[in-house]
Amino acid sequence: MAASAPDPALLARLLERLGPRGFTADPRDIEPWIVDWRGRVRGKAVALLSPADAGEVADVVAMCAAAGLPIVPQGGNTSMVAGATPPADGSALVLSTRRMRAIRAISVADGVAVVDAGVVLADLHAAAAAQGLRFPLSLGAKGSATIGGLISTNAGGTQVLRFGPMRSLVLGIEAVLPDGSRIEGLSALRKDNRGYDLRQLMSGAEGTLGIITAASLRLVPAIGRRAVAWVGLSSPQAALGLLRRLEAATGEAVESFELVPGDALELVLKHIPDTRAPLTGGHAWHVLVEATAPQGAADPADALGVVLADAIEAGEAADAAIAASEAQAEALWRLRESISEAERIDGMAAKHDVSVPVSTMPAFIQSARVEVEAAFPGTRVLAFGHLGDGNVHFNVRAPAGVDGMAWLAGEGASISRMVHDLTVAADGSISAEHGIGQTKLAEYLRLADPARLRAQRAIKAALDPQGIMNPGKLLG
Amino acid sequence: MAASAPDPALLARLLERLGPRGFTADPRDIEPWIVDWRGRVRGKAVALLSPADAGEVADVVAMCAAAGLPIVPQGGNTSMVAGATPPADGSALVLSTRRMRAIRAISVADGVAVVDAGVVLADLHAAAAAQGLRFPLSLGAKGSATIGGLISTNAGGTQVLRFGPMRSLVLGIEAVLPDGSRIEGLSALRKDNRGYDLRQLMSGAEGTLGIITAASLRLVPAIGRRAVAWVGLSSPQAALGLLRRLEAATGEAVESFELVPGDALELVLKHIPDTRAPLTGGHAWHVLVEATAPQGAADPADALGVVLADAIEAGEAADAAIAASEAQAEALWRLRESISEAERIDGMAAKHDVSVPVSTMPAFIQSARVEVEAAFPGTRVLAFGHLGDGNVHFNVRAPAGVDGMAWLAGEGASISRMVHDLTVAADGSISAEHGIGQTKLAEYLRLADPARLRAQRAIKAALDPQGIMNPGKLLG
Repeated sequence: MAASAPDPALLARLLERLGPRGFTADPRDIEPWIVDWRGRVRGKAVALLSPADAGEVADVVAMCAAAGLPIVPQGGNTSMVAGATPPADGSALVLSTRRMRAIRAISVADGVAVVDAGVVLADLHAAAAAQGLRFPLSLGAKGSATIGGLISTNAGGTQVLRFGPMRSLVLGIEAVLPDGSRIEGLSALRKDNRGYDLRQLMSGAEGTLGIITAASLRLVPAIGRRAVAWVGLSSPQAALGLLRRLEAATGEAVESFELVPGDALELVLKHIPDTRAPLTGGHAWHVLVEATAPQGAADPADALGVVLADAIEAGEAADAAIAASEAQAEALWRLRESISEAERIDGMAAKHDVSVPVSTMPAFIQSARVEVEAAFPGTRVLAFGHLGDGNVHFNVRAPAGVDGMAWLAGEGASISRMVHDLTVAADGSISAEHGIGQTKLAEYLRLADPARLRAQRAIKAALDPQGIMNPGKLLG
Repeated sequence: MAASAPDPALLARLLERLGPRGFTADPRDIEPWIVDWRGRVRGKAVALLSPADAGEVADVVAMCAAAGLPIVPQGGNTSMVAGATPPADGSALVLSTRRMRAIRAISVADGVAVVDAGVVLADLHAAAAAQGLRFPLSLGAKGSATIGGLISTNAGGTQVLRFGPMRSLVLGIEAVLPDGSRIEGLSALRKDNRGYDLRQLMSGAEGTLGIITAASLRLVPAIGRRAVAWVGLSSPQAALGLLRRLEAATGEAVESFELVPGDALELVLKHIPDTRAPLTGGHAWHVLVEATAPQGAADPADALGVVLADAIEAGEAADAAIAASEAQAEALWRLRESISEAERIDGMAAKHDVSVPVSTMPAFIQSARVEVEAAFPGTRVLAFGHLGDGNVHFNVRAPAGVDGMAWLAGEGASISRMVHDLTVAADGSISAEHGIGQTKLAEYLRLADPARLRAQRAIKAALDPQGIMNPGKLLG
């Protein structure tokens, strides 16, 4: 199907409906929103729509649907897979939720926040904290990522171990379907068995089934105290053993359990200012642990200290340090959160966001590393991340001295195919938390279970028969 | 569309494929499975299929799909809404999962059980306990209800407060779609963002989108110690205040928080042998609380005792007793679990399973009670259940002295319309945990959001274009 440029008359009607604050066709205004977060994929759009509320979203979707004009929904534009970048042929408009950023209500009694889709994650964190509550999902892009995008990508982050991914925290949604009809589902019911769960279906659908305009989200009590520890150990197997030991002793107090290879810590110490090693001596692997306790409960550092001492005694951990202050805790977290930046400064890498069953992750990390480094001489694998979720970021770094861009262009696809084949062979997922978007689409289509893909395409065709909602993403 | 009787030649081929253990056309064998759990809805089926494994399910679904022959999937046949009862016209066959009851694997390292769809809930409880783990969902029908049915109905129960409903515990599914194709999704990945979540879509779909043949389920560590308390208090408002007090003080230790009106306790004491009042003196309302702690942690009775003492001091609770032994704890639970039976012995009731936002539940219970009892003189409302989930069973009992069956036939529908209208007006759900099935269908269609219903029907038509999978349920 040849892409056609949007009809100028329709654009005029959209401008009329949205007003000058909600419609721009100025290329300078549009420019930042047609390139993906990582700067690798460039699209084209003749207009950027920024509706002010759900009613305006519904109206413009209905107008576009009537004309068969595709729409690319966009939140903070922080997709790791170019999931919010329009097609290069200019056939689609971008619809941004950035003007819809009201925190409509926070109910302390229900532990629920009702927020517009365009609310930025960090703003929700702040609003919840002001009420003695917290929204228990966080990730590096929290200063830009929006609630609508986080739901549409079923975002993960560092607290999935305890609270699950974004879909676990969504109690209700308000959305506009591809025909412009509105789903009103903000009532935050803990239990609701009235047929297919559209809230769950829209979570992780990457904007291909409609546009989320608002959500009701679960809040939990603010942390009373937290304890953050850095542990040096010999292997991912030892790390998993430590996690099980912690879970057995402290129940659900462990919120984060992040695996950091020695190489990654070295990169951070080398490239990120004002960082320093938390332990004396080198370790092949490290773990960042955070345990929390409600207000009024015992300091979680006490239980954490006991378990870590036992683990060292048992030879499971080599060394450990518990942050003695909130500043030290922040410094430990900064080490973990700076890995991607340090890696980027250091050179190019082919990146992968994979998951396998938790118990097999340690063996997977090590065997996949050996196989990939042997097949692509000179590369070095950096595997870090959420061990407790069975999810690591498996990044293959360019050999020393090569031109990174040229290397990635030449070898990147082959490397990714190998990593993904190994992942599938281990019963894993080639997208643990980033989604499919555009950049993983070919690999997803290559490896997907045909029955599952057929069912997904049938659902897409049923709800978006014209294929106007985020074209080219997720299902091709 | 006139229903036609199944083709005898097809029945012969089904017998050939399934063998005599997997196929019966003997009305005596079929009889127990064509009447619903509550004995109110009778269907008809000329054959009962009992495949031995997922391969047989796929084959018989493909054979039925080719002939356009409808199938009613059935697990333990414990639906409260006749969701597994075949149509009365005899146009469909019943497919039972009862022969598929292998517990395929329990991984202690991953905290995962992989089980056939026909495994009975109580059997999973026992198998998990044998490994020092538990499956944290339980309900009255646990001796009959199967895993496939629990997923298909997104079952609730008494532990939703802490662990969520069934869909929260499903890590993977294996299923047969209405065209006979198989979805292989048992790999228990904690994170997997590859498109629309079919696992979530099948959860709560009441068998209308396919037949679940196996599932991977989340297990959690066995309880170290539990503390069970019975509390007398003045109102549902006081009960909610107590819940918030408990949550603030003990975090996620509170697993169950069941509201019991004084009337309900009286019915239990009157009709159920060997029961006795846990507190001296009468109270308008009661709450059963269970708090747990992992192995090695402090006895949860200590913290519970402190909070209850504070609540009594603050005038929020009137009296409380903590079970001093496991036998006493069981006796308290028996009071709660006998309410339905006692109510049935006492007389007829129009029953409703509704939810509203948690903070509004106390006011809803009281205002809806007053309105319904005024509109239907002589009736008495009994509202009990899962206050912490915003879910109560709102049962309207027949006036004293009337013929219960005649009263229900005459007044039941009007009463239900009123209860459901009040629920919708309170932003609630007319089916919190039981589903829609057949018996709530008319009310669901009367009250559903048209856009939501249209989307659900589009999904149904996309995956089951012939409408052969559990016809007449959920969407009509």
